[in-house]
Amino acid sequence: MIHTTFKLRPASPMNPAPVVPAILVLGPPLVFKAYETEFSKKFNFLKPWENPIPLHQFLSTHSAAVKAIFCSAVSPVTGDIIQRLPELQFVLASSTGVNHIDLRECKRRGIVVANAGSTFSDDVADMAVGLLIDVMRRISAGNRFVKSGVWPREGDYPLANKLGGKRVGIVGLGSIGLHIATRLNAMGCIISYTSRTMKPHVPFPFYPGIHQLAANCEILLISCTLTEQTRHLIDREVMLVLGKEGVIINIARGAIINEKELVECLTKGEIGGAGLDVFENEPNFPKELFVLENVVLTPHHGAITEEACRKLYNLVCKNLDAFLSKKTLECEVLET
Amino acid sequence: MIHTTFKLRPASPMNPAPVVPAILVLGPPLVFKAYETEFSKKFNFLKPWENPIPLHQFLSTHSAAVKAIFCSAVSPVTGDIIQRLPELQFVLASSTGVNHIDLRECKRRGIVVANAGSTFSDDVADMAVGLLIDVMRRISAGNRFVKSGVWPREGDYPLANKLGGKRVGIVGLGSIGLHIATRLNAMGCIISYTSRTMKPHVPFPFYPGIHQLAANCEILLISCTLTEQTRHLIDREVMLVLGKEGVIINIARGAIINEKELVECLTKGEIGGAGLDVFENEPNFPKELFVLENVVLTPHHGAITEEACRKLYNLVCKNLDAFLSKKTLECEVLET
Repeated sequence: MIHTTFKLRPASPMNPAPVVPAILVLGPPLVFKAYETEFSKKFNFLKPWENPIPLHQFLSTHSAAVKAIFCSAVSPVTGDIIQRLPELQFVLASSTGVNHIDLRECKRRGIVVANAGSTFSDDVADMAVGLLIDVMRRISAGNRFVKSGVWPREGDYPLANKLGGKRVGIVGLGSIGLHIATRLNAMGCIISYTSRTMKPHVPFPFYPGIHQLAANCEILLISCTLTEQTRHLIDREVMLVLGKEGVIINIARGAIINEKELVECLTKGEIGGAGLDVFENEPNFPKELFVLENVVLTPHHGAITEEACRKLYNLVCKNLDAFLSKKTLECEVLET
Repeated sequence: MIHTTFKLRPASPMNPAPVVPAILVLGPPLVFKAYETEFSKKFNFLKPWENPIPLHQFLSTHSAAVKAIFCSAVSPVTGDIIQRLPELQFVLASSTGVNHIDLRECKRRGIVVANAGSTFSDDVADMAVGLLIDVMRRISAGNRFVKSGVWPREGDYPLANKLGGKRVGIVGLGSIGLHIATRLNAMGCIISYTSRTMKPHVPFPFYPGIHQLAANCEILLISCTLTEQTRHLIDREVMLVLGKEGVIINIARGAIINEKELVECLTKGEIGGAGLDVFENEPNFPKELFVLENVVLTPHHGAITEEACRKLYNLVCKNLDAFLSKKTLECEVLET
């Protein structure tokens, strides 16, 4: 890998300091915090959170230098930000989802967008399976039951639900969805899916619409991209079709579910339970869910393993190197 | 099925009431509580917990009638109990494990023992996988983190550990162990095992001893029978070989692990974490585990799903019918 681009030469009147291509970090992504020392040896990062001035002023100050943005899933890269950076050529997301990036504005400006690709697919799939087993088999609730010390007094724990034989509908059969399917297939679940298009070479039944899928499943597992088409795709109507015993797992993006209606269905017992790693307004989420034993909530850490973080660090370095040396990028988001 | 055996005929001096074969229920098993009405229509049960007299007195009163015992895993069927029941011919466990039954005394007396066979194998395997994902990916801890409301304040959640690529050693590759292997194989784990004997037609590496297995794994998954050979098989020495990052999951029987030494290793950070559905002295367990975030505890409910309970109910009816009509039993424990 070529790192020499960023060797700062001493400035002098005869030899003025070159404008070193700067990478604006927004978020900052967890991988950036975990590997900041290593990252900083290789690239020239701008870190607005270390500066007390407002972001728009920070952007104006550095607008000539910012060639790239490196951002986390919770940091919107809005049209406004992009317009303030005339030299911007590259936006690199630390996530797989790029719904926080104004892709239309990027396309208009010819700004290249890349994401984390399938770096986390297996980890996110594991999390989906973990959340599902947890909800069905009451693991977190059981842990609370035992650790609160009531087991000796209360005795038998309530019966849980079997996974084997349950019909699981996967919403979005991309890389993560396929990993989930493989795992749940091995656990004896009956898999079907819906997706933008029917996938060739996939052995699972395809339903063209979410209502048909929900009507034929006990479990809905959300692993699709958040777009204007999928925003609030899972609404009360879908949940009522899924039914009282139905379980919803979401490891994709919060806004794919109408969260207000989900809370309503859960509190009224119109669906059976939920496992949620993502929320509409993270890190905030409906307080009504605090008390529900049949709801397991995790703080959007489906992708966050040490090993995936290391893998992402390598991918980010590779992509920033490639960008700076005009080589081929990995995981370019081609839909822009 | 033949249920006529238990039709009570009205007693008269000329036609004295026959001694109806009675089934002594000890525990009582959860399935008995769940299906008591249905069970009671079919068989003549004796329920000592409904009687204020001490058990030994209860046994003396009914000793002539008790032909069979139906017991849960937490109710010891001791030599003393067996000796007080001269007519006893059959002990039926509601569990797969029969370590709570004095098999030697049963053998000596020619008493047949049967268990739940593989009724729960897939459910227990699911629980094992659920506990493992929970410990590795911090699901219960994440749920607590979110539900305690600290996420908005504390922000990023600590990095968790990836499952894919981890070396998992299965201790006891019976029906449950094989189900676990299938599941974890689909998740990209690298499986090996130890067992009384090397299994034919199994594609996973076999280690003859527990130390060799522990030395070649990051995760130990206990799914063997509790016998005098496996009691405290997993001791501090094994845990030190497994190492600081090592994780232990136990869905078999608590006493296979030396619990005191496990607590010591966990509190000293000599192993990385544990997921335990079973304990040495259930429902009691070491209070030191209350506070450990890397330890997930469930109240011995690996087998307890509604669906498995229904399946077990059918098996128990079938076996009690078979016993009373002298037909072939299912799931007879042949090692007696």
